Amino acid sequence: MGERIRATYLLETGLDPDAVAGVMAGEQSSGTFVAVPGETPELRRRAGAVVERVERLDTVAEPSLPGAARPPDGARYSRARVEISWPLDNIGPSLPNLMATVAGNLFELREVSGLRLLDIALPRAFAQACPGPAFGVEGTRRLAGVEGRPLIGTIIKPSIGLGPAETAGLVDGLCAAGIDFVKDDELQSDGAHCPFEARVKAVMEVVARHADRTGRKPMVAFNLTGEVDEMRRRHDVVAEHGGTCVMVSLNSVGLAGLMALRRHCALPIHAHRNGWGYLSRHPMLGWSYRAWQTLWRLAGADHMHVNGLDNKFCEANDSVVASARACLEPLFDDRPMTAMPVFSSGQSARQAAATYEALGSVDLIYAAGGGIMAHPAGPAAGVASLREAWEAAVKGIPAETYARSHEALRTALEAYR
Amino acid sequence: MGERIRATYLLETGLDPDAVAGVMAGEQSSGTFVAVPGETPELRRRAGAVVERVERLDTVAEPSLPGAARPPDGARYSRARVEISWPLDNIGPSLPNLMATVAGNLFELREVSGLRLLDIALPRAFAQACPGPAFGVEGTRRLAGVEGRPLIGTIIKPSIGLGPAETAGLVDGLCAAGIDFVKDDELQSDGAHCPFEARVKAVMEVVARHADRTGRKPMVAFNLTGEVDEMRRRHDVVAEHGGTCVMVSLNSVGLAGLMALRRHCALPIHAHRNGWGYLSRHPMLGWSYRAWQTLWRLAGADHMHVNGLDNKFCEANDSVVASARACLEPLFDDRPMTAMPVFSSGQSARQAAATYEALGSVDLIYAAGGGIMAHPAGPAAGVASLREAWEAAVKGIPAETYARSHEALRTALEAYR
Repeated sequence: MGERIRATYLLETGLDPDAVAGVMAGEQSSGTFVAVPGETPELRRRAGAVVERVERLDTVAEPSLPGAARPPDGARYSRARVEISWPLDNIGPSLPNLMATVAGNLFELREVSGLRLLDIALPRAFAQACPGPAFGVEGTRRLAGVEGRPLIGTIIKPSIGLGPAETAGLVDGLCAAGIDFVKDDELQSDGAHCPFEARVKAVMEVVARHADRTGRKPMVAFNLTGEVDEMRRRHDVVAEHGGTCVMVSLNSVGLAGLMALRRHCALPIHAHRNGWGYLSRHPMLGWSYRAWQTLWRLAGADHMHVNGLDNKFCEANDSVVASARACLEPLFDDRPMTAMPVFSSGQSARQAAATYEALGSVDLIYAAGGGIMAHPAGPAAGVASLREAWEAAVKGIPAETYARSHEALRTALEAYR
Repeated sequence: MGERIRATYLLETGLDPDAVAGVMAGEQSSGTFVAVPGETPELRRRAGAVVERVERLDTVAEPSLPGAARPPDGARYSRARVEISWPLDNIGPSLPNLMATVAGNLFELREVSGLRLLDIALPRAFAQACPGPAFGVEGTRRLAGVEGRPLIGTIIKPSIGLGPAETAGLVDGLCAAGIDFVKDDELQSDGAHCPFEARVKAVMEVVARHADRTGRKPMVAFNLTGEVDEMRRRHDVVAEHGGTCVMVSLNSVGLAGLMALRRHCALPIHAHRNGWGYLSRHPMLGWSYRAWQTLWRLAGADHMHVNGLDNKFCEANDSVVASARACLEPLFDDRPMTAMPVFSSGQSARQAAATYEALGSVDLIYAAGGGIMAHPAGPAAGVASLREAWEAAVKGIPAETYARSHEALRTALEAYR
């Protein structure tokens, strides 16, 4: 049948899951509500989506979503894992059109009382056509000068309201404290009180000074989220001032927006997932992170936010771990397109061991706000405590043991409980 | 306090709604999980979001979303309508950054067991900075040569699988039948069996022939969804061949993608909402259409899909009507940025009267598939039946009465039940 695009869904329905899988395949390819003359067997062979697999799971008494067809009297709603495939030739290796194909109208089908896109598997043509991350783990490590451990990162706080000089002052302190990575908040882009160019200029002056001093340039991710031409212009400003990273809010610019940036970009792209909650928080609707990150890595994201263990949001640890693992899993044998997972939200020295144990890798950015700034001995000790916590984790030494000979870590473990 | 951005949410929480509204405002502006030194009263005045209003609604026993903080023992989850405002200067009149501000991390807050963005109200600066629809209702009517009634439209079916010549053949029949508007399916863009340029060329030859014959050129919306440069190139192809409309999948290209197209575009943009289900189907999560369409109209959408009455999907009629009304409501007094609502899904002569009654306007595209193609007397009678149904509606004559003297309508009312 030639190369095919595959997508896996978690389906809930009051009807027969096999029949509903067929409706999904029809809606997303050559089928229509009413029979039309042109839908010949040959056309269906050429362009039709195929139900590859329907694996029955449990049943539930109540529908997860409103508006769905009810089951026959006394029957329950069935859940199933459904795999559907499409001919590559329907759309070619086009990410925006892939999205409309695997995640289009089907969430609105009356036949489904729950539908979540779990996974996407793509033919090699996408490896050739899509830009993918230009830097990934290796490129990021090279620019940041950090090997063998996570990049220890932090976020400019307060998120919004500081001017360029105040921001640069904050970055000065963070560089002095030995930080590897600093990012703008996603609320800070090019507002009146902190114009993008002025911020980049002020911050990069400070960063250059520290780089001259230490021989290593901390990476600062400047949030250039905006229209395509604005992003390109802002990228050039960052590059001109010696910056080594740009940040963008994925849901704000969209796939075509990110790809336009990536096609122009000469720096790692730090991809922020804000808005992710509306895509995923209901377990029977929307996107799994695994499926979602596939598209953004293909489009060119180098760093992907994954939340953090014991975070301040609502996400459970196993979900965070699954997201981070997905980012490090190769998309294609010869073009892995690995993105560096970014851990954040309530992170401190406390979560390093569990994060390493769950991930089995140090290829990540470990971002802490209070975990650095609120360290009782100051930000330098905060950064040191995170490095020490990761050293201990990698060596397989319990943090409490390692802390006996490492002051910053000891203080952190007492302070962050 | 200067000009402010305002957003209204439907909140559900196990905690105190006033306190949680404060958390939302903090998370989306200058607040942090831990106190930081820079968050001075002056900075908060300058950049802080403000809770403008918390209106308590009902309470529920169970949380809508998982992972939320529980209420005190025996207490219920409260629902409230919450309005929050931000200083315009935080982001300036930037749509992508607006999205990160009003619809960013807050859906993931542990404090909320349900959160839906209901409405957005913007200061005039957005009217000046955003392109908005270039054609809207008037421009679309002028190009399509249709006044005083809805554009009667249809969709190429089968959605995918036809080649350029087959597509052109179908369009030939539709033009002969008197159609006003034809659109590609959102699954059809630039696949191997129906390359974009070949399709445009074949279809526009046919359309030009009918335009020469009748003096009126049916509008064909070619789906150019793709990367930014692809969309610009495809737009130029459509324009060169005398086409009068392009179509794009909003969720596939994103705000920056649509704006890049709009800045280049010399034709009306037909905006498809496929994927809307994952943004909206759970009533306590995500986006209301009213809030969502605001952004896309500002970005430049001329036509916005709103589903249809008695549709084949899961959406209730009052929701469809609210969506369509929202598109016709002015965004600003001097720049209304009105978009033409597109009704579709299971539409026939049956729903015209109720649609007109609910909307009080004929400024819409009324798209039917089976409602035209499956008319017992053929597609020309199908188109005629829809025109007659709308004539009756506008004249305030019951369809059944009007059908006595209008054959196509009479047959349609018998056929579509």
